[in-house]
Parts: sequence; structure tokens; C-alpha cells
Amino acid sequence: MPAGSNDPDGVLSYQRPDEEAVVDQGGTSTILNIHYEKEELEGHRTLYVGVRMPLGRQSHRHHRTHGQKHRRRMRGKGASQGEEGPEALAHDTPSQRVQFILGTEEDEEHVPHDLFTELDEICLKEGEDAEWKETARWLKFEEDVEDGGERWSKPYVATLSLHSLFELRSCLINGTVLLDMRANSIEEISDLILDQQELFSDLNDSMRVKVREALLKKHHHQNEKKRNNLIPIVRSFAEVGKKQSDPHSMDKHGQTVSPQSIPTTSLEVKNGVNCEHSPVDLSKVDLHFMKKIPTGAEASNVLVGEVDSLDRPIVAFVRLSPAVLLSGLTEVPIPTRFLFILLGPVGKGQQYHEIGRSMATIMTDEIFHDVAYKAKERDDLLAGIDEFLDQVTVLPPGEWDPSIRIEPPKNVPSQEKRKMPGVPNGNVCHIEPEPHGGHSGPELQRTGRLFGGLVLDIKRKAPWYWSDYRDALSLQCLASFLFLYCACMSPVITFGGLLGEATEGRISAIESLFGASMTGIAYSLFAGQALTILGSTGPVLVFEKILFKFCKDYALSYLSLRACIGLWTAFLCIVLVATDASSLVCYITRFTEEAFASLICIIFIYEAIEKLIHLAETYPIHMHSQLDHLSLYYCRCTLPENPNNHTLQYWKDHNIVTTEVHWANLTVSECQEMHGEFTGSACGHHGPYTPDVLFWSCILFFTTFILSSTLKTFKTSRYFPTRVRSMVSDFAVFLTIFTMVIIDFLIGVPSPKLQVPSVFKPTRDDRGWIISPIGPNPWWTVIAAVIPALLCTILIFMDQQITAVIINRKEHKLKKGCGYHLDLLMVAIMLGVCSIMGLPWFVAATVLSITHVNSLKLESECSAPGEQPKFLGIREQRVTGLMIFVLMGCSVFMTAILKFIPMPVLYGVFLYMGVSSLQGIQYSPRKSSLRSYSMDRRKLN
Amino acid sequence: MPAGSNDPDGVLSYQRPDEEAVVDQGGTSTILNIHYEKEELEGHRTLYVGVRMPLGRQSHRHHRTHGQKHRRRMRGKGASQGEEGPEALAHDTPSQRVQFILGTEEDEEHVPHDLFTELDEICLKEGEDAEWKETARWLKFEEDVEDGGERWSKPYVATLSLHSLFELRSCLINGTVLLDMRANSIEEISDLILDQQELFSDLNDSMRVKVREALLKKHHHQNEKKRNNLIPIVRSFAEVGKKQSDPHSMDKHGQTVSPQSIPTTSLEVKNGVNCEHSPVDLSKVDLHFMKKIPTGAEASNVLVGEVDSLDRPIVAFVRLSPAVLLSGLTEVPIPTRFLFILLGPVGKGQQYHEIGRSMATIMTDEIFHDVAYKAKERDDLLAGIDEFLDQVTVLPPGEWDPSIRIEPPKNVPSQEKRKMPGVPNGNVCHIEPEPHGGHSGPELQRTGRLFGGLVLDIKRKAPWYWSDYRDALSLQCLASFLFLYCACMSPVITFGGLLGEATEGRISAIESLFGASMTGIAYSLFAGQALTILGSTGPVLVFEKILFKFCKDYALSYLSLRACIGLWTAFLCIVLVATDASSLVCYITRFTEEAFASLICIIFIYEAIEKLIHLAETYPIHMHSQLDHLSLYYCRCTLPENPNNHTLQYWKDHNIVTTEVHWANLTVSECQEMHGEFTGSACGHHGPYTPDVLFWSCILFFTTFILSSTLKTFKTSRYFPTRVRSMVSDFAVFLTIFTMVIIDFLIGVPSPKLQVPSVFKPTRDDRGWIISPIGPNPWWTVIAAVIPALLCTILIFMDQQITAVIINRKEHKLKKGCGYHLDLLMVAIMLGVCSIMGLPWFVAATVLSITHVNSLKLESECSAPGEQPKFLGIREQRVTGLMIFVLMGCSVFMTAILKFIPMPVLYGVFLYMGVSSLQGIQYSPRKSSLRSYSMDRRKLN
Repeated sequence: MPAGSNDPDGVLSYQRPDEEAVVDQGGTSTILNIHYEKEELEGHRTLYVGVRMPLGRQSHRHHRTHGQKHRRRMRGKGASQGEEGPEALAHDTPSQRVQFILGTEEDEEHVPHDLFTELDEICLKEGEDAEWKETARWLKFEEDVEDGGERWSKPYVATLSLHSLFELRSCLINGTVLLDMRANSIEEISDLILDQQELFSDLNDSMRVKVREALLKKHHHQNEKKRNNLIPIVRSFAEVGKKQSDPHSMDKHGQTVSPQSIPTTSLEVKNGVNCEHSPVDLSKVDLHFMKKIPTGAEASNVLVGEVDSLDRPIVAFVRLSPAVLLSGLTEVPIPTRFLFILLGPVGKGQQYHEIGRSMATIMTDEIFHDVAYKAKERDDLLAGIDEFLDQVTVLPPGEWDPSIRIEPPKNVPSQEKRKMPGVPNGNVCHIEPEPHGGHSGPELQRTGRLFGGLVLDIKRKAPWYWSDYRDALSLQCLASFLFLYCACMSPVITFGGLLGEATEGRISAIESLFGASMTGIAYSLFAGQALTILGSTGPVLVFEKILFKFCKDYALSYLSLRACIGLWTAFLCIVLVATDASSLVCYITRFTEEAFASLICIIFIYEAIEKLIHLAETYPIHMHSQLDHLSLYYCRCTLPENPNNHTLQYWKDHNIVTTEVHWANLTVSECQEMHGEFTGSACGHHGPYTPDVLFWSCILFFTTFILSSTLKTFKTSRYFPTRVRSMVSDFAVFLTIFTMVIIDFLIGVPSPKLQVPSVFKPTRDDRGWIISPIGPNPWWTVIAAVIPALLCTILIFMDQQITAVIINRKEHKLKKGCGYHLDLLMVAIMLGVCSIMGLPWFVAATVLSITHVNSLKLESECSAPGEQPKFLGIREQRVTGLMIFVLMGCSVFMTAILKFIPMPVLYGVFLYMGVSSLQGIQYSPRKSSLRSYSMDRRKLN
Repeated sequence: MPAGSNDPDGVLSYQRPDEEAVVDQGGTSTILNIHYEKEELEGHRTLYVGVRMPLGRQSHRHHRTHGQKHRRRMRGKGASQGEEGPEALAHDTPSQRVQFILGTEEDEEHVPHDLFTELDEICLKEGEDAEWKETARWLKFEEDVEDGGERWSKPYVATLSLHSLFELRSCLINGTVLLDMRANSIEEISDLILDQQELFSDLNDSMRVKVREALLKKHHHQNEKKRNNLIPIVRSFAEVGKKQSDPHSMDKHGQTVSPQSIPTTSLEVKNGVNCEHSPVDLSKVDLHFMKKIPTGAEASNVLVGEVDSLDRPIVAFVRLSPAVLLSGLTEVPIPTRFLFILLGPVGKGQQYHEIGRSMATIMTDEIFHDVAYKAKERDDLLAGIDEFLDQVTVLPPGEWDPSIRIEPPKNVPSQEKRKMPGVPNGNVCHIEPEPHGGHSGPELQRTGRLFGGLVLDIKRKAPWYWSDYRDALSLQCLASFLFLYCACMSPVITFGGLLGEATEGRISAIESLFGASMTGIAYSLFAGQALTILGSTGPVLVFEKILFKFCKDYALSYLSLRACIGLWTAFLCIVLVATDASSLVCYITRFTEEAFASLICIIFIYEAIEKLIHLAETYPIHMHSQLDHLSLYYCRCTLPENPNNHTLQYWKDHNIVTTEVHWANLTVSECQEMHGEFTGSACGHHGPYTPDVLFWSCILFFTTFILSSTLKTFKTSRYFPTRVRSMVSDFAVFLTIFTMVIIDFLIGVPSPKLQVPSVFKPTRDDRGWIISPIGPNPWWTVIAAVIPALLCTILIFMDQQITAVIINRKEHKLKKGCGYHLDLLMVAIMLGVCSIMGLPWFVAATVLSITHVNSLKLESECSAPGEQPKFLGIREQRVTGLMIFVLMGCSVFMTAILKFIPMPVLYGVFLYMGVSSLQGIQYSPRKSSLRSYSMDRRKLN
């Protein structure tokens, strides 16, 4: 049949049994043996020719047009009996034949649907009652009914034996192949198959009765605990069918037949109607599994079994057209398209089982599946099998235990190349294009115009702006926001505190909180890449410290000079934006990125641990204490014996009469205020030993780390439904913090807590919210400030852009594009604002940003059992960032709640963030990383 | 050639090139095309017939004697050209042919050796210098040279494509096959191959020169960093060769030829000498890898490559006889037996690489390897490939990414069944005999004679007695002993302490220590299964408690009554020994065992955690303390305000004048002794709050558990040499204890420590080391004691024997047999002794015994890369047990050291023991357990 011909008569359909070519019936009796040998040989040559010869000889022989020229083979028996040589040579390779078959125009009845394959087995012996038992099923990977029949195995890669694949092949060569059969019930199908069998072999009547009986036996599916009723609870499945989106499986007439009126054995059939109204017992259907079956899917039923009266196997491959919902046959109520039947003598059950598995597995193969839908004759199916064989991977017997179940891999290479002619097949190694390290693309091309890049950024991002809010409607965003709010609070406050110490309170916690919140809100609203989280960074702190010291030494106003520098920096950054300097980031190599990010992560981890160790100084423990002396231990406040001048001065200033003070009754803070001295056996260097706090902090720290890591990997746990698991995984860190806060509260040990300023006003009364850039400083400082500003600009540019590069990586599959110029502009503007207001500066924080992106990963949900969820991208939106910083601004009013959060828990969260970011950076994008699979040893039956 | 015929002329050897049948040369020119087609077809039919038909037709056709009747095929070209039908039918299956080949008698030259296979590749282009580069090697699993050529990949299961296997097959059909070639250098081999090629194809002279040049190119191996010399450093390898144990590869003449005198191109050759003297540069040999190659191994070199002047591939399969050490060809200096050469036009390198890998992989297949050694003609090799194909496991293309490297499995099923005729092949699922739960065997058969079982036990064990001491010479035993000493000490002392509390000091820690030591020593010296560790068990403690209460209530002497019961129990146990009652344990099913052991383990884990929780009561923490009030906190001893009568009485008895006591200066213990009261803000219910101890204990507990688990799995870490890793793993627990003791010492928090009695005398002065069984009790108590003794007997019998059953499991592969009767006898005797001496009773402790066995596991060391070390058995000896209990007896003198061991560390060890025993019990023997493999994504080239 030439390509493109639409001849409907060419379709091998059941309606025309008179045509010799229509039904392929392999010879089974001795009379037909020669034909059989013939078939076999031809089949084998086809297989052989399919193998591309490395010896170059094939090319000698094949100097015909290879193209799409597909020859229809002569099917007349014995026609090519004597001289098979040239006929054999006339064959194309199976691969080419398959490509031709797949290339044919689709008529409505041969459009490939998704397939659900089910393997049912029976063992029918004289005098014993038997029924078909579902033993395995396939959506993409194999699931077996485990011994005992009570549960499904984990999905696994169906490892077949080549032996049974060849057996299957010979089954198809010699069995009945009925394509496009029109039948409405399993009874009808059985009769038609047996009619065919009778035509070509010596099927006697008693055998026919027996086989028919076997085929009509009830089907027991794993999910049915017991067969509680013979007449299924009647419910029309039509409504369910109508909901299916696939137009081909929809009832075009919309006619609903009252189910009660249909006798099960004679379903009313409409032309072109694939999905029949039929009584379906939904109570028996595993609705959870049903959800995983794509809409419009059809069933392929593989029925293999032993029947004791048979002396030779009966094989049939049936394609129904239209697909028919055969009630009770399939586990789920979907119409059956394919039937493979193999019934043979008793004793070879294991062999039949393997053939059935092979059949089911090749039916799930993308390419064979299409071939099966479009095949016009037996040889098309054989070509499909041969093409499949040509693509399989082989495990040598001595190196592998076939009973080991292989867990499905994360990715399966695309099979599309098998459909394309000209692509050499059979190569085990595919050369995939390596994801390139550089960051090219339209975003980073120099425009050559002033603000050209910025304008493009805005043009690129503007259409996405509203979707940035719409897309945030997800529980995952809530989880991400809660987690990152907790994670961001602590560094902002700690940083503020440190800055406060360094600048004698000129810029402290409240300024830090206010600045972070303001900058963050503005950035989240208008930046090009709102997934980046701004934060305070170490270099900025160092810079501020040096600046403050400089100002103090030269008696300059720190805040004013700082405002100048900030404004200059902002200006310089805007210049960088104007000149499209951000396009330089395309020179940042993968290595730079990874080195930078790794360094930041390691510093992050180091800092988390360092903070914990720092607690040992703040909360000294009484080492080498003796429990027996506990009744003698105390640490009381006393009048210093030899007060120094400073202390004396203090007493004098505050009018303290030392003899009037009840020193022993003073609390620690009072004693410190009064410049008292601590004496006693329970006193450390700077005051009393603090019991329990340090160790409790250690426990909190490590428990937080372990718990959050564990909860994060909870997604791949084997318990609980997917939804619960993925939610737990999303909320992992928040749940951990919540749990730890409660435990800490219950234990009651006074561990250090998060201290949030509770009043919104500048820390020092001598400064307001607006700082003059000149102030008391000489005029030239305004100009001189450009020198430190240059340094600052470099610092901020690097910090901001490398982080942006990491966030905008190709692996993150961002759809809404990036905006380096816009990002930098926002940072610059807010830097200026912060400088004027005397607030700290904020730039992109690498670890927080990576954590943010990681917490917003989107994975495909509905997939076949065993298929790994695919990474779809990141939930790109502005809401999480916005909410984090809005809530941060409101934190001033939430001190009552926040004061319950122990700092060691937050340190534990930092450790977790550092470690998980480090893993994300170093391993996931690399190809050569080790991957772990757990395998399930296959149950032996 | 009929089976059993020894006709040496039938051997296809190189020496007789005149015979047509000797050298199979596939047709390559167009003239020979028909023959080629013929070959191909026949080859394919052979493959096909090899597939056992499930359709029963085969049996119709194969009603000949299937047996060993192997037909020699007619090799005359064109002889069967026209009528191939009957000739085709005359074939046996490849499997049968292979079995026949393997069954032939072995002449000296065809004895299969171990094989090392190396894949070398070349790409020779005009004007470019090239050399052969080693790209992969096989001992059992494939190792690839990774990109960059600097290191070897992890060994992995060679996943082949079926496509390249078929290509390989056609290579063998059409290529030159030279079996038993006699050649001494690669030059000679090249010439012989090229002669053959010229005979049968149009190999022109320039091509011949080019190919010869390619074949003689230098070989570069991965381990050679650079080729630093052209003439290798000369060293005779004869000495190394002589050391090899295999007689076939030994130089029988012992003649050493001075290496300097041999020109590399014309090595002197002796008949029958496999291992040639030749200059071998040992500096280039990877000696570490060389160690892994079995002695007597031969090399198989697979050489594939592209040569630009070729227009068609040249294929040759060569078997050398004798094997020749071809200097520089193979990575390691072993003689080459097989050579597979595939040189083809440029551009198909990847394809050739895959064919080479396929060849190398089938050469490592146990069966094909034997076939290759014994093959007499080309068809034998083809049958070998077909048989191999028939056994392979197939992974469907759509479900597996062939570039994933599969890590070698723990076990590979035996391939022996492939050698045996009659065993149906091709079944993926092998029904392996499940390890039976019951414990049958000669040990547990009832003899019917008095002490018959005991006598047999002694007879069985006596020959092993001295080896029980010799076999203990191993570092592993030291590790095991140190670990278990620490593990045993704590429960013995804890148990003693509890018993002391329960019996008012009549039996306490020192008695427990003494009893355990004595019983343990005796048991270790004379028991049937010295791997069992005796210990104190919960039920015994309960029994003693009840007995003591009973005695107190009825004013009986506890120790005397106990002695009676003990003696009765001992007697009853001896009766059980005499009547071979231990043979009843064969009725203990796997389920009972596992249930019992699991229960014991769970109790063990529970107790470990419970003890930790118990610390919270002993060391209360000050919950909700305020750090600011630390200066006000104290807990002082004071005079009780309202002393109760008991206190008043105490003061009166001890002549304490309450007003004279400096209550505030009393330590905790003094205060408690004086019946003082604790008052103050730092006081708990029973005394002062103990700071830090509880949390520090928690940290010690969990750190110990985590650290020991981590160190135990250190064996499979990727760093450090195997020896170091296995030592760390062996000493895991001891290292952990040691580390934790040091940390605890450095921190100095007064955590609870192991308290060992320091003086060897009975706890109470009113008892000695010998207890009279009657004592002050009435005479009838001696007889009445038989009733509790019955209960005790059941308790001890069950405890002892179930543990023994678990230890003597088949999976432990014990070689020295068990001795249930002897075990019980020893327990009974020591029970009697302990009763008389007033010491606690000891029986087999399940968890300790399992831990002991696990710590003595023996694994095979030298195995092919990638092969999992095999579990060989247990280091069965008496020394560890003996040493544990000897040292336990000496512990009284080691209190100075032992007092540094914190109890929480020991609790952590218990947790570890419980968890690891539980895992060992529940999972390892089960087939369906999940196993983890890590896979390495195959590098793309």
C-alpha cells in the first residue's frame, strides 16, 4: 500500500472474512508446516536485515532508494515458496517499515490512544473452578500482584527475557491475527477467534467448547477484595465517558441508554461510538488508580493461561474497532482496544506468563503501541516487534540477576528518534547537547542604546506581570513564604544587631528590619527577577564598620558620609544599567558560578555552626562541677572588694551608697548595672554559669537540621498519600520550626530567643528617618565619597549579578525570562533611598535566593506509576517575596509571637539551607553524578 | 563429530590450512554473496530453533533423540544451497550444541582458564599518528576509561544493545575465524590474519599494508601515564609465571632465557609452553589490579578501530594455541589466548566500539568463555552466541535509559544450569529452593540413647577444638572482643544493681560480675556453640524478685531456697540433655525465631531509651528557670521544719544534735544522710536540680548511636583503602566509645558513669561464697523447690535454645557445627554452681549473641572489580567469648579506667545493638527486601 493512500478497503477488517489476505492464520497443522517454515524464515530475515551491518556489505546490496518506498508483501501462501531469495531482498528494514507505518495518514479508527495494559491469567483444570486473575498491569512500568494477591508491587522496569520475546514473536507469526474486529462482547470475540482457529487448524468441538468456556470465565482483579455480587451494581458510565476530553472516545450522540435495559451479553452498539454505555460497578474500581489513567485511554488485555484439554496452544491477537467497553474484563472501566490471547496445555504456565509480560511490555512501548494501532497486517506487527528488539538494552546473564526488580529511572530517553527515518539506530550512547555554561540569549545582548537593555527587560517582563500574582495561588507558595519569612528574619535582625554594635546604635535592628522590608517590597513589586531574595551580606557589614571607624577617627558624621556614598553608588549602578553593563554576566562561566555559590554556601554553613559555638561563650556551663556539691553552689552578687575607678565613678554619678544596697538580692542584670561582683562556686568569668542552655541549644540545632532534612525527603517516602507527602515536604522547614518551638516551650529551658524590636522608631534619638547627605561634614566629602562608592558599586554589582545568574539558570526552566538590568536598577534606587533614610543596604542574598527557588519547584503530578515526576519549572511569581517582606515590616507588631522562636532552631535552619543549597549547586546539574535507585527483588513464583 | 570421539584430526587447528573446513572464511565479495546469504539464513535459523516454542509444534518436529547427538554440519559451500529445508531441520538447539561442546573431553590446550578481557581502540587517519588506546576492561564487570583517560570508572554491568550483539554475530559469520593459531608475536598473527583475508576477498596490497601497520601500532594502557621508553625495561617474567599455581600456564622446562638475548619480534617458542619468557615492564603494570587477576588467567584482546583507507571491515576472531605473552598488548603481563579484531572504515567508531564491548562482554560470560576455549569451528562460536542471546535479560527502550550504568548486583544466579541438558532455559524466574525455616540435620536428630545427642555433640565439636583458638588470630576478633566487653559490662552491672535493690543486697553487682565471668569462661571453654554470649535476662530478674518477696513473707532464707531451686533446675536441664530434648528445637519455625528475636530486640531498644528517660528523673533539670535570677538561685540543706517520726528516730539513733549541725554546709549526700531538707529556688522534688547532666546525656546517647552506625557503614565508603575501611568498620563501636569517653572527659559534665565494684567480696557480710541449699529453711523446702524449678527450666530452656537456633542459622554458614545438647549441659552445670555460690543465673543473651556473630562476619576479599564481597561465614572461635569474660572478671581491678565510661554512651551502644540486630533479623534473610544500588550515569563519548 503506497504511502498516503487512503483506501479504506485496504484496511484489514473483520467484516470481510472471505478475503484471503484479511486474516492471517499461521499454519498449525503438519500440512501447513512448509508454509510455517516459510513464515518463520521470512520473519527472521526481516529481523536480520533490520540489523545495520557494520561490514559495509549491506550498502553493496542495498543500492536501491532506501526512502519511504514501502512494498506490500505478497501474502499468497506458497506464492514465494520456491524462490525466496529476491523476495527476501526486497524487504526494507523493520525500522523503515515502522517509520512508514507511523507516517501513514490517520483515519479516525486508527488514532493511537493511551493504553492501559492488563495481564490476566487462568489455570483451568478438569473439575476445578477457575477464574481469570489479574497478575500484572502496565501504564508505563510494570506492577505485579504480589504473592498473596493482596497488594501491588512497586512499579518497576519490566525486565524481559529475550527468549520469551522471541517466543512472542513466533506466537504472532503462527497465531491468529484479527485486526479491526467488530464485536461487542467477550462472547462474540471468543466465537470469532474460534471460528478463525477452526478454519485453519484441527480444532475439535470439545476443545472449542473448553476454550470458549475458559475465555468467558470471570475476571478477578486485585482491587476487588471478593466477588460480592454477580450482577454488578448498575451505573451508567456514560457520564464519566463524556467527561473525557479526547474527542475520539466521546459519545457523539449523547444518547444515554438506561443501563437496566441492556442485557450484559448484547450491548447495543453504535457506529463510531467508542465509549459504550454499560453497567460498570464503580465500587470495584480503584478510583485512586483510575485517576492515573489518562483520559481517552483504552485498554489492552493480555490473557494467558493453561487449559488442560488443549494439546497445542491457541494464540490470537485482536484489535477491536471500535474499542468496546467489555464489562468486567478490565480493572478500570475503559474500552478495550486490543486483546492478546494465549491458551496452552497445562504445565507451561511460567512460560506463558513470560510471553504475556512480553506482549504487555511491548504494548506499552511508545512505538510498538502506535504500530499496533496502525498495523494493516500481521507483518506490520512483526516489523514492530523487530524494530523494538533492535532498540532493546541487553543485560548479560552472568552479570545480572533477572529476578532483581529495577526501579524506574528518573529520565527515559525520548523515543522520537525511532520514528524519524535516517537517524542511525542501535547506538547505545546518544550524544546529547550538554547544557551550555555561558548565559547567552536575547536578555544579555548589548543593545548599544542608553537604557536599551532596561527597556527590553521591561518589555519582556510586563506581559507577565499579572500572571506573577495569579500564579501564586498555591499552597506551595504559602509554605515557601512561611519558611523564608522565618529564614529571612533572623539574619536581618542579627545583622542589625551587629551593625548596631559597630556603629554605636546609629544603625541597628529596627533600621535593618525597616530597610529590608522596604527594599524587599519595592524589589518584589518591580524587579525583573522577583525570585531573588534580598538580604544583608557580610562585605557590606565590613564596609560599614571600616567607614564608621574612619568617620570617628576624622570626626565626620557617619550617617551623612554614608548617605553620600550610597547616593554615589546608586548613581554608578544606574550608569551601569544605562550602559547595559549587566550584559557582562554572559562571561560568567559555570565554574565561576559554582565556585562563588559554593563559597557562599560554605560560609553560610560555617556561620551557622559558628553561631552555635558562640553560644558557649554567652552561656558558659559549669564544667567539672560535682553533683554532690550542688547544695553548696551559688553565685551571688557582692560588693566589689577592690572597685576600680570606673566603678567608683559610676557609683558617684548615680548616687549609689554601696552599703545601702542589698547586694545579695540583686539579679544578674541589676548586679551588672550596679557594677557588682559575682562570687560563689557557681560563677564563671563574667557571671553565673548558665545551666542547660548550651546543651539544649545543641539539641535544638541538630534536631532542627535532621528533622527538616528528613521531612524534606518525606516526598519519596513509601507511606501516606502523595498529596500529604508533598505537602509535608513543602512545609518541611516551617513544620520543623513549629515543632521545635513547641518542644522548646514545653521544656522551658531559657534558650536564646529571637528578639525583635517592638517599637517603630530609630534606635538613637539623635537621628531621624531622613539623613542629610552633607550634614555637618565639609562639602568636599560629598565628592570624595565617589571613591568608596566605586568599591561599593563593584561589590554590589558582583553580589547581585552572580546571584541573579544562578537563579536564572537554564536548569530552572524559567518561562518568564530574566531582567538583569531591571534588577540592578531596583537595587540601585532602593540603595539610594536607604542611604537617605539611614538604613542598611540590601542586595541579592545567594543562599536565601537559592532556597527560595528550590522551595518553589514545580513537578509534574499525574504520572504513570513508577514514572518519576518531571521537573517542570519554578513557580515564578512575586507574591512570596512580597509577602515575606511585608510580614517582615509587620514583625514589629508580632514580637509576642516571634519571641518564642529559639535562635538555635533558626541556626539549624541556616545549616539546612546551606547544606541543601550546596547539594543543589554542586550535584544536580552535573551529568556524572551518582544516582541511587533502590531495587526490589522480584518475587519468585 | 559424535560425542566422546577423541579424534585429534577433528580439531580445527591452524597447522592445516589446506583443509577447507579448517578456516571459516565468510564470503565477502559479490561472488561469494550467495554463500553469504546462505550462512546468514542458516545462522538465523539456528538462533530461531534455539527458542523453545511454546506452541508445541517443536515437539512435533523434534521427535528425534534429543540427547547428546551432535551433528557436524556440512561445511561445503553451496552443498545445501538449493534444498535447505531438511538440512535446517537437522539442527539441534544452540543450547544443546553448547552443552555438547562443554561436555567434550578436555585436551590440554583447550582447558578453559580465567580470562581478562581488554578493549583497545584506534582511529588511524592519513597523516595522523595514532596508537591503540585501552578504553575498557573486564574481569567480571565492565570498567571504562573515563573521559580524559585519567581514571577507571566504577565497575558496572555491561548493558549492551541487542543490535550490536546481532552485528557481532554477523561479524563472526562473515569474518575470519582462526582457531588454535600458532603464533608468537603480533606481527605473525597479523600476517596470518591478512593471509586469510586475501584468500577470500579482494584485499589489495596497499590495504594490507595499512591494516598491518594499524595492527602493529603501539598499545597505550590507562595505567601508563606516558610512554617514557620505547625499549621496555627488561625483566624476565618467568619467575612470576612460575609462581602461578595453574599447571597449564607453567613453564614445564623451567628454562630461563636471558631476556636481553631475545629480540622482541622473534620470541623463542617452546612447544606446550603457554607462558613465554618475554621482556615485561613491570613498572607499567598496575600491581594493585594485577592482584585481582586470578592466577593462571589468560587475556582476550578485543581490538576495534577505524582505518581510513579501508572500504569494508576486516573481522577476525583468533584463538592462539598455546597462549602467548604478547608484550605490550595487554595491560597486565598475562599470555593472550583470544584476539578479536574489527577494523573498518572511518566514521563508524561508535558502532565498532559497541561491537567490541559486546564481544568483550560475551567473552566474560561463563558459558561462552568455555565454548570459546573448546570451539572446533565457527558454528560452535555462533551456537555460543545464540545460547548467550537466549539467556539475556532485556530492558525495553521506553522504560530504561541505556546510558545509566547499573551497579553490579550482590548476587548473580549460577550459570551452571545452562551447562546441564534437560533444564528448561529461558525462564526469567528460577524457582530457587527457599532456605527452609526448620532446623533439621544430624545435630538435632533424636538418638534414642541416654546422652546420645551430647556424645554426638562432643564428637562433632572435639576435632575443631584447637582450631577454635587458632582461628582467633585476627584483628577482627580483637575488635569484637573490645566492643562486646564494653557492651556486656554494662548490663551485668546494671542487672546486679537492680538485683541488689530487689534482694536487699544479698545478690548485687559484685556477685553478678563474678557469676557472669565464671559462667562465661566455663561456657566459652566447653560449650558447643561458643559464639553465644551469656547474659542476664529480664525474666530471671522478675523471678528473683518474686522469690525474694515470697521468702521475706514466709521468713525463709532466700539464698538457700534459691540454691535449691537452682540445683533442681540444673538437674532438670541435665535430664533434658540426657533425653535429647534439644532436638525439639527443630520444630521452631522461622516465624517463631523471628518473632522472638524481634521482640527481644524491641525490648532492648525500648530499654535503652527507657534508661535515658529514666535519667530525667535522676537528674532533674530546672525547667522554666530565668537566667536573670541565676544569682538568686541556690539549694541549701536545712533543718527540716516538721521532721517526721522516722527522721526523729534516726537522729536519736545516731546521736545527732540538730542544732549543732551546720546544715547549710552539708553536701547533697551528707544532707540526705542527715535527713535534712533542701530549700531554695534551685531545688527540685528530691534535691537540687542538676544542671546540664540530662541534656549532655542525651547528646552522648544519640551521638554514640549515630557515630557507631556511621562508622559501621564506613566499609562501603568511597574513601580510604579497603583495609583501613574494614578496620574502622570492625572497630566501629569501640572507636565510638573511646571517642565519646574522651569528649565526655574533656567537657567534664558529671554524667553518670559506669560504677564497677572495686573490691572482691560479697556485698553483704552475712553471706559467704558458698550457700547451703537447706540452711535455716525447713527440709521440705528442698523438695518443694522442684515446682518453681520446673518453671525456671522452661524459661532457661526456651531462652537458651531459641538464641542458639538464631546463632546456628544456615545463613551464618557455620562450618564447625552446633551443639545444642552440650550448650544446655554447660548452662545447667554453671547454673548449679552459681546457685551454690549464691550468684545470679546466666543464659544465652539474644541481642548480645547476634551482635557477637555479626561482629565476626567473614567476607571474601579478593574479587573481581565490581563483584560484591561474598559472605563466607563467621569467624568461629572461642577466644572472643573467653576474653570477654576473663576481662569481665578482672574488671574489679580496672575501676580506675572503667569509671570514665559514661552510661549514656553505653545506652547508645545498646540502641545501636538493638537496631542493628533487628535489621539483621528482619531483613537480610528475606528475599523481598529492598536493596539499594547506586548507579553511575554512563559518560557519553
